[in-house]
Amino acid sequence: MKPNTAILLIHCPDQRGIVAALAGFIASENGNILHLDQHVDTEQNVFFARVEWALDGFRIPRERLGEAVEQLAGPRRMNWQLFFSDRRPRLAIFVSKQSHCLYDLLARHEAGELDADIPMIVSNHPDLRPAAERFGIPFRVVSVTPGERAAVEEQATRLLESAGVDTVVLARYMQILSGDFVRRYPDQIINIHHSFLPAFPGAKPYHSAHARGVKIIGATAHYVTETLDEGPIIEQDVVRVSHRQTVGDLVRQGQDLEKVVLARAVRWHIEKRILVYHNKTVVF
Amino acid sequence: MKPNTAILLIHCPDQRGIVAALAGFIASENGNILHLDQHVDTEQNVFFARVEWALDGFRIPRERLGEAVEQLAGPRRMNWQLFFSDRRPRLAIFVSKQSHCLYDLLARHEAGELDADIPMIVSNHPDLRPAAERFGIPFRVVSVTPGERAAVEEQATRLLESAGVDTVVLARYMQILSGDFVRRYPDQIINIHHSFLPAFPGAKPYHSAHARGVKIIGATAHYVTETLDEGPIIEQDVVRVSHRQTVGDLVRQGQDLEKVVLARAVRWHIEKRILVYHNKTVVF
Amino acid sequence: MKPNTAILLIHCPDQRGIVAALAGFIASENGNILHLDQHVDTEQNVFFARVEWALDGFRIPRERLGEAVEQLAGPRRMNWQLFFSDRRPRLAIFVSKQSHCLYDLLARHEAGELDADIPMIVSNHPDLRPAAERFGIPFRVVSVTPGERAAVEEQATRLLESAGVDTVVLARYMQILSGDFVRRYPDQIINIHHSFLPAFPGAKPYHSAHARGVKIIGATAHYVTETLDEGPIIEQDVVRVSHRQTVGDLVRQGQDLEKVVLARAVRWHIEKRILVYHNKTVVF
Amino acid sequence: MKPNTAILLIHCPDQRGIVAALAGFIASENGNILHLDQHVDTEQNVFFARVEWALDGFRIPRERLGEAVEQLAGPRRMNWQLFFSDRRPRLAIFVSKQSHCLYDLLARHEAGELDADIPMIVSNHPDLRPAAERFGIPFRVVSVTPGERAAVEEQATRLLESAGVDTVVLARYMQILSGDFVRRYPDQIINIHHSFLPAFPGAKPYHSAHARGVKIIGATAHYVTETLDEGPIIEQDVVRVSHRQTVGDLVRQGQDLEKVVLARAVRWHIEKRILVYHNKTVVF
Repeated sequence: MKPNTAILLIHCPDQRGIVAALAGFIASENGNILHLDQHVDTEQNVFFARVEWALDGFRIPRERLGEAVEQLAGPRRMNWQLFFSDRRPRLAIFVSKQSHCLYDLLARHEAGELDADIPMIVSNHPDLRPAAERFGIPFRVVSVTPGERAAVEEQATRLLESAGVDTVVLARYMQILSGDFVRRYPDQIINIHHSFLPAFPGAKPYHSAHARGVKIIGATAHYVTETLDEGPIIEQDVVRVSHRQTVGDLVRQGQDLEKVVLARAVRWHIEKRILVYHNKTVVF
Repeated sequence: MKPNTAILLIHCPDQRGIVAALAGFIASENGNILHLDQHVDTEQNVFFARVEWALDGFRIPRERLGEAVEQLAGPRRMNWQLFFSDRRPRLAIFVSKQSHCLYDLLARHEAGELDADIPMIVSNHPDLRPAAERFGIPFRVVSVTPGERAAVEEQATRLLESAGVDTVVLARYMQILSGDFVRRYPDQIINIHHSFLPAFPGAKPYHSAHARGVKIIGATAHYVTETLDEGPIIEQDVVRVSHRQTVGDLVRQGQDLEKVVLARAVRWHIEKRILVYHNKTVVF
Repeated sequence: MKPNTAILLIHCPDQRGIVAALAGFIASENGNILHLDQHVDTEQNVFFARVEWALDGFRIPRERLGEAVEQLAGPRRMNWQLFFSDRRPRLAIFVSKQSHCLYDLLARHEAGELDADIPMIVSNHPDLRPAAERFGIPFRVVSVTPGERAAVEEQATRLLESAGVDTVVLARYMQILSGDFVRRYPDQIINIHHSFLPAFPGAKPYHSAHARGVKIIGATAHYVTETLDEGPIIEQDVVRVSHRQTVGDLVRQGQDLEKVVLARAVRWHIEKRILVYHNKTVVF
Repeated sequence: MKPNTAILLIHCPDQRGIVAALAGFIASENGNILHLDQHVDTEQNVFFARVEWALDGFRIPRERLGEAVEQLAGPRRMNWQLFFSDRRPRLAIFVSKQSHCLYDLLARHEAGELDADIPMIVSNHPDLRPAAERFGIPFRVVSVTPGERAAVEEQATRLLESAGVDTVVLARYMQILSGDFVRRYPDQIINIHHSFLPAFPGAKPYHSAHARGVKIIGATAHYVTETLDEGPIIEQDVVRVSHRQTVGDLVRQGQDLEKVVLARAVRWHIEKRILVYHNKTVVF
């Protein structure tokens, strides 16, 4: 049994005594720190930390914890986010026609590897309905008709809200989301792009990689922002290729990267290990 | 003792019977094939091959071998290049102020890892003269004064020609070569670029990589063409980084990549294992 | 549409003219070589090759092709195996309780990535029956009771034979097969071992890796021989770990390796790209 | 200019409030923490930390700092080591005949990458004297005659002590050190072994890797203990190989690994980032 924990993510101007204040606060209320990771960006002079402690025996009740953190954070100009490990994230997975990332996430979820609920799979095509049904997850088709993106996204938003979704995973979803939609889920939409960004943004990166004759291809998981393929990078991985691979070979090899890179990003997001700052991520 | 060999690099339109013709030609003259690598680009319908055979017992003398190859090649519209293993390539290494690639190449050369002569090190700065002298290699300073690139390159060209140089290795040489110079050495100038091309071309790629927050950095060895950082890629390699690395850390980690990627490219070039086609390389 | 092809795998003492004989044989009968890969082990003096050619227009009918190959092979002391691309391999997947490799293979199979039939999943536990049923593949439980391995394997063998199975994939099957069983399927049983062999053979390799404090863990796909974890290695891959990972973390990270390493090995086996010699593999 | 810092490495039974105590101690004396890394081994219930803080403005003078740390550490049963960044480590490099690791370390040292002094190179062969002389470092030959290891090591020890050496780097030194010698330098002798340990310990690992047909080879840097190739692993890295590589190719590819793996280990050791516990390393 994993213990119930609180997780605090913070960043603030670097200053003397900040770790002592943070650790002292938790210790003085009888909290047992399980993980404390900190990082100082010495160029920007910013302090980052993730601290996770057991709630068992901790003297501040969780409904008053935010207030207590704010007393600590305010004078130090800390930005903070507070999470509780027993509040499971709720994910919607968006797909189009390709199944590899979807099956990979569903199999991991069933095996208990992803500590989250998946109330819904959303697609602009009906093709993957059987895959969703095999794993007993509701499948919603939200057709994207040219010129009606606003209405379609409105429909998607209602679906997500009705299901209490807090995280959107774009598992090879081949549509571009509007700025309006993206702004509703800041740092909560994870995309997998099938190249080693910033190389080969946009469409058909495997074709571009083949044409350029690169010797290594990659995949990139990132948070979605309003600028296509330019959001904060969460994770990347690569695999070696050679002149012998056709575009089709690159696609197949790349899919293995896409699966594992997306799964890592989703897991880190679920575990509240990612802190976004200046369009970059600190992954503790 | 390695045997004396002939190496034939060819590419031509793919056609039935071409391997049989090639292997049959060598066998019929009593040649013993040591390596035969072929590749068919099924999209472009082009056949590529590298074949190396022992000259001992081969019935065609080397001075008539080109003519014999042409008889085979002509009717099949083959492009071909013929090399003999006992004709050692002659390398000039161009450097600026950073020593890591230079020392790496010189140490490998001394250890017998690079089967070539290095008659000359050329630099636009005097800083690395002691490094060159330690290994007993002539060091020439060719200062690059703004507005005088043509004259300077003229001087460099004379140096290279007088030393019988056939291959130029840019081992972190921080000057851009003119089109005139580059055209004199087609597919014979190897550069190491300190990023995973096509990501981060141009100056200060480690700064750009840090600013973008990538999770992996790379290095790329390529032949120099008239378009900066867009020549055929010979080899790339990468290393994982995290938010903890400063730009200085990336520089240091990247240098380890640069050394090994450049060394591999130089070795493959020396061994005549690289075939350039459509701004890409086939590395056998 | 992929063309129907013949694939010939051979090895024999290295000798002059062998590529010419091989390529000449195919060309003279109007075959079009699509791939020819050869390798010479200069220490053992053995020649290896894989040649694949289109059957369309080839003048020897397939029922007489073996005979024709033997005429070529006999005088040259070639060992050879001949395959036709339109004869799909038939795989049985053996599992125990862990689902990750099974789901990965089934998802790849459904996506058309594995050019084979999977008539049967065999297990010593009923746990993964639902996974098999989701993908519509018959699931057979063959309980392994201590002291009855012979009877159990007899039962498994009958199942495999009745389904025309030619390849057995041990997808984290946690039982040791008898020598009798293994000898029935020489170089046709593929196992995934969850370590970087020869490090950590046998049970609980992740625990051993953690105890030893290695900085990299791996997975190994190999053909099963009578000696446990010592068969010819087909493929390996690794991932970096640190002191921060618990055994549980290693298990989870390792599973991602196991999936991809096993899938590569299965695909190469299906594509007849693997040649076994002296307990090692040549993978063309 | 890097500031002068103190570095404290500790491990102790995990307990509530320990980070608070550590950080509070430094903050209360006006120290500015630059890095604080901690790790809890939840299986062994051991707390590990490395904390580095600027000495500028810190109120405890360095000659009394050990005493102050002991007051903190004693009641908490902490094992601790204290270092000052301005006390440069003194390295002796031991070599035999191969030059690649030696040149690599010397070039890095000259480029300012290794913040240490190298007062001496020791060898059992005279071959690398010119390499040492090129970089102006004294070279001592300590011949190892069978049956006289004790006397020889006595001589080496005197050399090391007279030069104030605190760290021994075995840069492909092909002799086995006695237990007596090893015990004099606990966790201060770094060796590079040319395999991915625990695979292929002992002599000729590249031959063994080739014979076993592995698809990946590696190198391992570790602290030397009395049991050959079984000391705590500091760093490992790997490179992919295939059936095409001869033993000679493995040696050459492996040398590139050896250089970079050894250099990383030496740098981390110099920077006091390594903590040894239960024959494993925590590398902060």
